[in-house]
Amino acid sequence: MPEFLELLTPEEGISKLLQHMELVVFRSENIRTENGLNRILAGNINSDEDIPAFTRSTVDGFAVIGKDTFGASEVLPAIFEVVGEIQMGKPADIQINKGQACLIHTGGMLPAGADAVVMVENTQYSNSKEIEVYRAVPSGENVILKGEDIMKGDIVLQKGIKIRASEIGALMALGITEIEVYDLPRVGILSTGDEIIPPHNLPELGQIRDINSYSLSAIVEKFGGIPKCYPIIQDDKSKLLNSLRIAHEENDLIIVTAGSSASVRDLTADAINELGSPGVLVHGINVRPGKPTILAYANGKPIIGLPGNPVSAFVIAHLLLRCIMPKLRGEVKTFETQIMKGMITINISSAAGREDWVPVRLLEEENNGLKLVEPIFYKSNLIFSLIDAIGLARIAPEVTGLEANSEVEILLI
Amino acid sequence: MPEFLELLTPEEGISKLLQHMELVVFRSENIRTENGLNRILAGNINSDEDIPAFTRSTVDGFAVIGKDTFGASEVLPAIFEVVGEIQMGKPADIQINKGQACLIHTGGMLPAGADAVVMVENTQYSNSKEIEVYRAVPSGENVILKGEDIMKGDIVLQKGIKIRASEIGALMALGITEIEVYDLPRVGILSTGDEIIPPHNLPELGQIRDINSYSLSAIVEKFGGIPKCYPIIQDDKSKLLNSLRIAHEENDLIIVTAGSSASVRDLTADAINELGSPGVLVHGINVRPGKPTILAYANGKPIIGLPGNPVSAFVIAHLLLRCIMPKLRGEVKTFETQIMKGMITINISSAAGREDWVPVRLLEEENNGLKLVEPIFYKSNLIFSLIDAIGLARIAPEVTGLEANSEVEILLI
Repeated sequence: MPEFLELLTPEEGISKLLQHMELVVFRSENIRTENGLNRILAGNINSDEDIPAFTRSTVDGFAVIGKDTFGASEVLPAIFEVVGEIQMGKPADIQINKGQACLIHTGGMLPAGADAVVMVENTQYSNSKEIEVYRAVPSGENVILKGEDIMKGDIVLQKGIKIRASEIGALMALGITEIEVYDLPRVGILSTGDEIIPPHNLPELGQIRDINSYSLSAIVEKFGGIPKCYPIIQDDKSKLLNSLRIAHEENDLIIVTAGSSASVRDLTADAINELGSPGVLVHGINVRPGKPTILAYANGKPIIGLPGNPVSAFVIAHLLLRCIMPKLRGEVKTFETQIMKGMITINISSAAGREDWVPVRLLEEENNGLKLVEPIFYKSNLIFSLIDAIGLARIAPEVTGLEANSEVEILLI
Repeated sequence: MPEFLELLTPEEGISKLLQHMELVVFRSENIRTENGLNRILAGNINSDEDIPAFTRSTVDGFAVIGKDTFGASEVLPAIFEVVGEIQMGKPADIQINKGQACLIHTGGMLPAGADAVVMVENTQYSNSKEIEVYRAVPSGENVILKGEDIMKGDIVLQKGIKIRASEIGALMALGITEIEVYDLPRVGILSTGDEIIPPHNLPELGQIRDINSYSLSAIVEKFGGIPKCYPIIQDDKSKLLNSLRIAHEENDLIIVTAGSSASVRDLTADAINELGSPGVLVHGINVRPGKPTILAYANGKPIIGLPGNPVSAFVIAHLLLRCIMPKLRGEVKTFETQIMKGMITINISSAAGREDWVPVRLLEEENNGLKLVEPIFYKSNLIFSLIDAIGLARIAPEVTGLEANSEVEILLI
């Protein structure tokens, strides 16, 4: 692996791949708005209506002409004739004239003539037909005007935003019950290695069960893609290339985990290069774990080659997919919620220039508002060391380690 | 609403409801492990096997007897006879004797006799049958022992944990391809109000579209439940009670949004009280928005009554479901990722004793490592004000507001 001589940092490697991904072609589909949670809008949404469609009260009270209340106070209330009550869900068929009021409920339609609402707490019936008003309300008080929220023709939601509960509510308010969203990215996952067997089989001596297909599928799902696993591939270039070709055809991103030995890792890079141009962009990243990572792009689709070691594959998949998946999903602005700040309890050393990601366990205590975490030390293959981890603490390439009691950025897993 | 006289804080109200929920009965189902992401384990998982099942190499190199390398260095290498190569995926059928070595790949099975591996970088062939070893390796170096990761009989995963990609990987390593998980909680959602119509209808004057059914469904989905919406209910106690009874039968939690006026809100509490004992536990919470919230428990199931106002319903649903849903899901330890710290850019005032939740917009800048946020001011009904919000900033009951440039806790939406 001569490319190891000048290794990129993960950030540099990802940025190289993302540049090629500027040309990714998106497909879209129409779905019911109520099924849209976490999907990405494929076009701007304009409003066909004013929202609210009519001027409404925001409180329970009496609709009045605001200027009729001027000077009203506890000491000197203004007197109003009550001329009716607004029924919910119906047009307000009452006309308010000078000195008149009508009972109105929160959300009720403001009657003609009225321009403000006095809260019920600031009124009292003096007889069955009249109320005393103890507070002045200027025009517009306690009402939402027609179109105050949204004007007909406004762009309400922008292409590329992620749909949350609030966007679903807003779309329903507009009567938009169907939306166009980008397709979820399909991600093909290929596990290779002569020693790898399906998990439901009992391993013979020397064999181990396939972990990567399943942990990687779950990571893909977590980052909003649709994973598809392919049958385990032996360490044979023509078999690998054959599977890669099928996966490349059927998916938007391919992840292949290499067999364990160095010779086999080169085989993966060779096979990827035959998929199309430009082929392998990065072979080897200055990161631990996961140095032998491959980043490639062939015929409009990204391809990732990961080390076969389940911990390395797990860590690198997190680092890469958190950047690649939002791009493949068509997200314009990604707000990542998977980063937490914590305080590391002991010194950890690292090589200068290399980025390290260390599994950390959450302790019960806090210090200075930061949750305490301690590193989990592990040997190269122990997926079980990740079970106790809340996430991966980053040691930046610029530093040679973290000092005890320093702040640390943790990528939650 | 006489109960408003002594209002609980949200925390107090939730704690009261959670006490009753100690008695919730859980159901479980068996699913395929690969479909288990974000589900909660309904029982402990024990290992039937040692992991690894055989002692393995963690590097590419040569398997040797460690003590044969004592004293080896660049200057004075130790000489070893190479007696073969370990094939991946097969039992190691080689016996290593004093002064012998065999080629081994990462993950390969350690041959009988050997107890350590010299990395290939620290060796060189001196002729086709012999290598020079430049570094001493103590017994156990670069190997993982049989059972070092997991011993047969160990509890690997505890009941009540949430399954992540790492747990799926670990289960597959053990060959556990089916697991027992708790059922996802079913949540019935009822929208009431004479003025409310289904979103695909064109509102007549005075009518508005149902927002709450859909925004609340999305919030339920986000917190890991299965929402079910019921037809819109008119402001009529017997109709409401009838729908509540059906929803109570079919779900694990019921959320009902009240009609808008105060009289109708009392109707909701009355109907809930007829569902069973103990009935309404809390009527009114010292929070803004969302004061008229109802917390109830009837015949083993929690019931939430929310204000009809879409913003209030949205905010309170977030506050309540982040606590209630993990409990209903059977989670033993919840790690919440939906809280972010930020810095507020301007003063916000609040009443003492009352907890406020203010929608905030994310600004591009940071200060002191905190992202800057500014409050979004809104009138009572504007669901659209939430579209621009990254989350809800909390103003604690103990304070009377937030000062500009102070740190603030934000519940992401």
